[in-house]
Amino acid sequence: MNNLENINIILVEPINGGNIGSICRSINNNGITNLSLVNPNKNIDWLEAKKLACNASNQLNSIKIYDSLKKAISKSTIIAGTSARTGFYRDSSITIEKFSEIGLESAKNHKIALVFGREDKGLSNDEIALCTHIIQIPSSKMYPSLNLSHAVHICCYELFKKSNIFVPSKEKCDEAPSELKERMFKIWEQMLIDTEFVHQEKLNHMMLGIRRIFNRGKLTKSDTKILMGIARQNLWIANKKNDSNDAIS
Amino acid sequence: MNNLENINIILVEPINGGNIGSICRSINNNGITNLSLVNPNKNIDWLEAKKLACNASNQLNSIKIYDSLKKAISKSTIIAGTSARTGFYRDSSITIEKFSEIGLESAKNHKIALVFGREDKGLSNDEIALCTHIIQIPSSKMYPSLNLSHAVHICCYELFKKSNIFVPSKEKCDEAPSELKERMFKIWEQMLIDTEFVHQEKLNHMMLGIRRIFNRGKLTKSDTKILMGIARQNLWIANKKNDSNDAIS
Repeated sequence: MNNLENINIILVEPINGGNIGSICRSINNNGITNLSLVNPNKNIDWLEAKKLACNASNQLNSIKIYDSLKKAISKSTIIAGTSARTGFYRDSSITIEKFSEIGLESAKNHKIALVFGREDKGLSNDEIALCTHIIQIPSSKMYPSLNLSHAVHICCYELFKKSNIFVPSKEKCDEAPSELKERMFKIWEQMLIDTEFVHQEKLNHMMLGIRRIFNRGKLTKSDTKILMGIARQNLWIANKKNDSNDAIS
Repeated sequence: MNNLENINIILVEPINGGNIGSICRSINNNGITNLSLVNPNKNIDWLEAKKLACNASNQLNSIKIYDSLKKAISKSTIIAGTSARTGFYRDSSITIEKFSEIGLESAKNHKIALVFGREDKGLSNDEIALCTHIIQIPSSKMYPSLNLSHAVHICCYELFKKSNIFVPSKEKCDEAPSELKERMFKIWEQMLIDTEFVHQEKLNHMMLGIRRIFNRGKLTKSDTKILMGIARQNLWIANKKNDSNDAIS
């Protein structure tokens, strides 16, 4: 059992169909599939919702509708409300990053809920009172209020990240060991001499610079072989030219 | 100089006006103010953009428009492209969380760019080739492709978070020291006895349970005083009743 399955996203009195659709996509982007609405606005544009849900339009069909927040959260242990404002209840809020640990730990065995308020007015004090935790989403004083679907996405993203389901893609090729890189530098040295880019007495100094360039980031085996191939080709051209010059003179 | 000022968000051939507006809001939510578009679609609905920008509609007026990605990035040192797909160039991608450290470090002294592709096709291989870094945004295999404005928000959020500008709100009241809590527990003991909730011989056992309840989460000084006040009031009521019962009997 994946603990993301125990996470319920609850929107209180949402107004905008586009937001509901976007949120279907956002929760699926982050491996979450339970979405409930409490008293959604009667004029919601469900066509707009479907458009913005894109490939998550099936999620729209599995939305649960409740006529009170109390009913929507009744089976949940942790109820986390989101609030941008500060005030009496709101002062003991924690960031969504910190909450993710607590929430996922509880979601191993219990249902938990994340509650989001109206687009224009957020959650009321009565609704905040039902919450066991108040979540804060970091945002700038320049413009602290997030679009509803963005707020949901950030919260689901932090929960998904902490669930460790996502494994970042890695370089397929191994990093090059010293032995391979030294063979490459040897051929580069020869190239710098044979193409007369530097004189023998300046070679060591120049090679320190070249080493710095190639060691600044990591080189894979395949990168190193490409660099060896380029130097070998230049050596071959340079020596062919030298030979033909010798033949002429 | 705030290093967020050196961050440029670049959208390549965006199609949807709503997304451009949402992105104005998203970048301002995260303290970022530089937005450029490369060859935006000619049919962009700028009214829709203004609607979704909400209070960030001024940001729409300071968007820079370029006719090539090369020109848009010309002054930047780090150019980070975003890609959900994997492939040749894309294999060496890093998560936005890891990139934020590298990006902000460079943004202390240099301009850096974050490049986002088209809503439907992302970035081309030629555009990816211009990037110094490839960013991956963690997402579920269930539906890995993010809405453009959500992708931008997540990237700006991670950069904003790492910039340490945001300070989470804290409890205004200090945590209660042992001395205050012990006084509170003493009054609770008295209340449990005087209200005849437990007999004296069961008191210590019950108080262990009460202590566990109140010590599970932290208590502030003000919380502790509220709990003391409640117990004192109950004591007062109980003793008044006892007194009047004594008077009657």
